[in-house]
Amino acid sequence: MKVAILGYGTVASAVVKTLIDNQELIKARCDEEIIPVIALARTPKENALIPVVNDIELILNRNDIDVFVELMGGIEFPFEIISKILKRKKAVVTANKALLAYHRYELEKLAKNSAFGYEASVAGGIPIIKILKEGLSANNILCIKGILNGTSNYILSKMVEDGANFKEVLQKAQDLGYAEADPTFDIEGFDAAHKLLILANIAYGLRVKPEEILIEGISKVKQEDICFAKDFDYVIKHLGIARSKNEKVELRVHPAMISKDKMLAKVDGVMNAVSVDGDILGESLYYGAGAGGKATASAVVADLIDIARKEKNTAMFGYLNDTSYSLLVKDEIYTKYYLRLKVLDKIGVLSIITNLMSQLQISIDTFLQKPKKENDCSILFFITHETYEKNIQILIKELKKQNFIQDEIFMMRIED
Amino acid sequence: MKVAILGYGTVASAVVKTLIDNQELIKARCDEEIIPVIALARTPKENALIPVVNDIELILNRNDIDVFVELMGGIEFPFEIISKILKRKKAVVTANKALLAYHRYELEKLAKNSAFGYEASVAGGIPIIKILKEGLSANNILCIKGILNGTSNYILSKMVEDGANFKEVLQKAQDLGYAEADPTFDIEGFDAAHKLLILANIAYGLRVKPEEILIEGISKVKQEDICFAKDFDYVIKHLGIARSKNEKVELRVHPAMISKDKMLAKVDGVMNAVSVDGDILGESLYYGAGAGGKATASAVVADLIDIARKEKNTAMFGYLNDTSYSLLVKDEIYTKYYLRLKVLDKIGVLSIITNLMSQLQISIDTFLQKPKKENDCSILFFITHETYEKNIQILIKELKKQNFIQDEIFMMRIED
Repeated sequence: MKVAILGYGTVASAVVKTLIDNQELIKARCDEEIIPVIALARTPKENALIPVVNDIELILNRNDIDVFVELMGGIEFPFEIISKILKRKKAVVTANKALLAYHRYELEKLAKNSAFGYEASVAGGIPIIKILKEGLSANNILCIKGILNGTSNYILSKMVEDGANFKEVLQKAQDLGYAEADPTFDIEGFDAAHKLLILANIAYGLRVKPEEILIEGISKVKQEDICFAKDFDYVIKHLGIARSKNEKVELRVHPAMISKDKMLAKVDGVMNAVSVDGDILGESLYYGAGAGGKATASAVVADLIDIARKEKNTAMFGYLNDTSYSLLVKDEIYTKYYLRLKVLDKIGVLSIITNLMSQLQISIDTFLQKPKKENDCSILFFITHETYEKNIQILIKELKKQNFIQDEIFMMRIED
Repeated sequence: MKVAILGYGTVASAVVKTLIDNQELIKARCDEEIIPVIALARTPKENALIPVVNDIELILNRNDIDVFVELMGGIEFPFEIISKILKRKKAVVTANKALLAYHRYELEKLAKNSAFGYEASVAGGIPIIKILKEGLSANNILCIKGILNGTSNYILSKMVEDGANFKEVLQKAQDLGYAEADPTFDIEGFDAAHKLLILANIAYGLRVKPEEILIEGISKVKQEDICFAKDFDYVIKHLGIARSKNEKVELRVHPAMISKDKMLAKVDGVMNAVSVDGDILGESLYYGAGAGGKATASAVVADLIDIARKEKNTAMFGYLNDTSYSLLVKDEIYTKYYLRLKVLDKIGVLSIITNLMSQLQISIDTFLQKPKKENDCSILFFITHETYEKNIQILIKELKKQNFIQDEIFMMRIED
């Protein structure tokens, strides 16, 4: 399957690199080589991994291209180009939410006979389009609430963490590259609104444009609001909300206070998350990186793999070829361990235990002995540094032989 | 598309009810009527919504059935039945994780020419099979960590919440129906292990049976461990872990300590969640109801819809027919509101504000006035009870006319 990449920024580079780095994996998953053959860029790209041209006609005129990946941005120009491609019944993949917010109905009509992937247009690498369209297809969607813009969520999270004002945090976000030089599109809610319209389209089939819905950004949120929210057990998040009642759907994008113990309230920094309430499933939530080259590439390449799979048998477990993975034997598990021991409180006990550990190359990270409550017994708590399961099992076996050990030895692994 | 249901317990009833209640929605989503026509049950079912028989041959011999949904449980008997069905090239949907843990390779071979859906076998209604198999298909999966057993998670959550011992909480869980009379399968980790093997199969193509992997349950966790974990900023969760390194995959199921600020640490009660770390996307997390009739039915019916869609054009936004939804006008949004006002601190101000609210039928839920910091000005914070957007907009307009209002009025909606 030959792929052309239109546009060559961060996402496009990551798409090309993923197709090359993970080509064996991709082949095993869809029984097809997906090859990026040419890219469009306004200016020449050094270090580009595939040939780059600046004349789009050179790409559109090639008959060997199976899928066109649109990563140019903008609205009217990509719409014009994609329309042409779809009319020739070729497949398209795009990450362009603004394009979809304004032209998705025309595109849907044109795409009747072509594959059209747009997973990357909402919430970056979280496969929320597929989840809503397929995974939750049995449900009437009662409500969608999404943290859909990483820049806004980063700023609000930092205002809580640092006690700083909106402007200070925005400046910091710009310095770190989390906010654009002109951040209006993100912080005033337009980006989130475009994404919400796409989700609402899948949930409700709604034909609505951004101008018709309520859109507010975070620029008026002050530190006083953050503090008030904290005092009353709320957290302020910028949400895109779609909620249905009696076939009316409300769509709105704005900062909102949510109870601090909701899962959505715990989504911090540049991360995105979408909570979906379905009449059959109830609430579910999907969390991950909503932006960035690699995260977006993850969704674009998944769309390409879906298109490649379309004509084939899909393997029941997603692999059509054998893989080279094998099971690691238990002894070789390597992690941190927690140990709880009940021991007789007599001289030399700790020395014996630590000596055993030392012989097995087990190093202690945390140790706690609480003042004893029961006759002559103490409880010892250890956390080790990383070690092999085999060593811990030998340690436990050796400890069990000691006459100062009371009760069972309890071991638990640590997963940070 | 005609569907037969084998087994008629909680999940089967929910599947039949969902197919009937949401039939219009389902038709709009896959352009096909999915009709449950007959069910198998050992004993007659009162109030069954479709004909129920107790002789499986009566169902297997019917030539008009397109899909067989296996919800009987067990391992060898359903394996035998499903093998027969697949040999006749008919489609199968199952929620049976034990069956898949032991016989998935034989089934995969038999299913080469049939659709085989098993979304419901892991994490109930969370579409984690589809997410791993399709949504994250561009990624080498570095690590999967799942809270895969609701009973275990409920017990551990309650041990934290109530400070109670394992046995007390288990008893309570049994009384509430969250744990079986014989809870071994859940609390000793076997259920989670079956699910982990299915996920590891998709991620790594691993041919492994439950006996080959490390499985520990939660029955040895004591209140002392819970307290130790708390003191050192950990939370104890029962996890299924799959992690790859150099083509070796470690698979293990056990209670583990995880840092309390991880998203997984925040998953409480009977809920399930799966965190997936991919080489392209990074970490993403999927959260929802992992058991129960309706949640499981959500996954079973999604599989049925996928099968119905297979032969058709899939609509770009998941609807093939028009829907009856329309956009709610902004004025009719109905929620709680937060208001921050900066006012001159003079007599009668609060009276005017509350009078305006009362005229608009806006009722106050929370009110805070902090001692003033700036000359002659106070900041007032309000949270209202639910009211219409229209009323809040009128209130803000009226307030702006008042000469005691200093600075902009800030309003934020509350989404609990």
